[in-house]
Amino acid sequence: MTRGPRTIGVLGGMGPEATILLQRKVLDAVLARDDSDHIPLVIEMNPRVPSRIAHLLEGTGEDPGPILAAMAERLQNAGCAALAMPCNTAHHYADAITDAVQIPLLNMIDLAAQHAAEKLGKGGCVGILASPAVRKTELFERALEAYGISVIWPDQDAAMLLAIRQIKMDGPVPEARDALILASSELVAAGAALQFVACSEFSLIAQSVAEGAQAVDTVDLLAQAIVEFSTSG
Amino acid sequence: MTRGPRTIGVLGGMGPEATILLQRKVLDAVLARDDSDHIPLVIEMNPRVPSRIAHLLEGTGEDPGPILAAMAERLQNAGCAALAMPCNTAHHYADAITDAVQIPLLNMIDLAAQHAAEKLGKGGCVGILASPAVRKTELFERALEAYGISVIWPDQDAAMLLAIRQIKMDGPVPEARDALILASSELVAAGAALQFVACSEFSLIAQSVAEGAQAVDTVDLLAQAIVEFSTSG
Repeated sequence: MTRGPRTIGVLGGMGPEATILLQRKVLDAVLARDDSDHIPLVIEMNPRVPSRIAHLLEGTGEDPGPILAAMAERLQNAGCAALAMPCNTAHHYADAITDAVQIPLLNMIDLAAQHAAEKLGKGGCVGILASPAVRKTELFERALEAYGISVIWPDQDAAMLLAIRQIKMDGPVPEARDALILASSELVAAGAALQFVACSEFSLIAQSVAEGAQAVDTVDLLAQAIVEFSTSG
Repeated sequence: MTRGPRTIGVLGGMGPEATILLQRKVLDAVLARDDSDHIPLVIEMNPRVPSRIAHLLEGTGEDPGPILAAMAERLQNAGCAALAMPCNTAHHYADAITDAVQIPLLNMIDLAAQHAAEKLGKGGCVGILASPAVRKTELFERALEAYGISVIWPDQDAAMLLAIRQIKMDGPVPEARDALILASSELVAAGAALQFVACSEFSLIAQSVAEGAQAVDTVDLLAQAIVEFSTSG
């Protein structure tokens, strides 16, 4: 796996649906004439990563950091040239990952911030459709502040959290879609010029935003970055 | 990744679509309340495995065996308790894989033969919807002979091969569906009491068989075996 495109390691299982969705998006981003044209990936689908929501919101349960670091080491040992993690919340533990390996993490939060800076420029406002756990981490606030872009969130944390748990349990159900559309409408009304679909569960229903809202799925930005890194250099 | 269910290593990328489909089937086979209920997998999505069709049919190109053996070793080193390979044709190289590791390969061909023996018993007849490369390997003939079950194939190898290449290139297009339905009807007329959808590309259109035909997708049997092995012992 040394010839041609470079292998990307995927820290997956958070959740499994999102990990499959990322592979689908990477596959669709490549114009393939045969199998050999696709991007080499090593995916660790690890359902045993402690709950990020339990650790961040409920303050209970194990720190996912050490387990993510061990996954990153295994992926580096498997010959991966870079890492990717299709879970916004888990980026709270990005330092634990990057400290454990010599290969880069294609940081989905940083990719989203760069995208917003290109689209909006200084003084813009981005609305976030994500888990309350992401809100608590202030990951996007810190990343976007560097570009002079402000961040707003929908009011109903509980509704967002419920929708995420519904999708984890039952897949993209209508109740979850309705909750996302409502939150997206709120963000438009509050002046968001751009919205991030920034929860891997919401990626499964990323079309369910307010009519006319400009929204980008952070997993799409990650898929693009994977293809670019793998096929460059 | 040592607690709870055992980790299964997936030799993937042959093709990528089939590798994603297997993950989808494993995910759907588990009743999950949260991420942690799912099956741990390590998936090596390796588009660099030399073409099985080129090696088996055209007699050109590199032997995939050594590369599959190296993948198996990496997956064993990553802590996998068993291996799975969602590509029927590649099972021609199963010995190269099992010789390289101490963990078992959940052999999709053997799983299919066992299923046929349970469904049909001695003297039954199975029709195969697969790549001409699989036909040439006589994988199913050897596996089913042990159970006293005979094997028949559709006539048009060229049509099957074209359909596989269409799916690899453009996804599940109508032309490919029509070709599979035609071949399946042939097998029914020829007296097949059971049909194997035994090509990972055909798994993407596994519903496109003759009306009333009893068909089973070998990837479904592999997904079941993965869940059973992972959650047992």
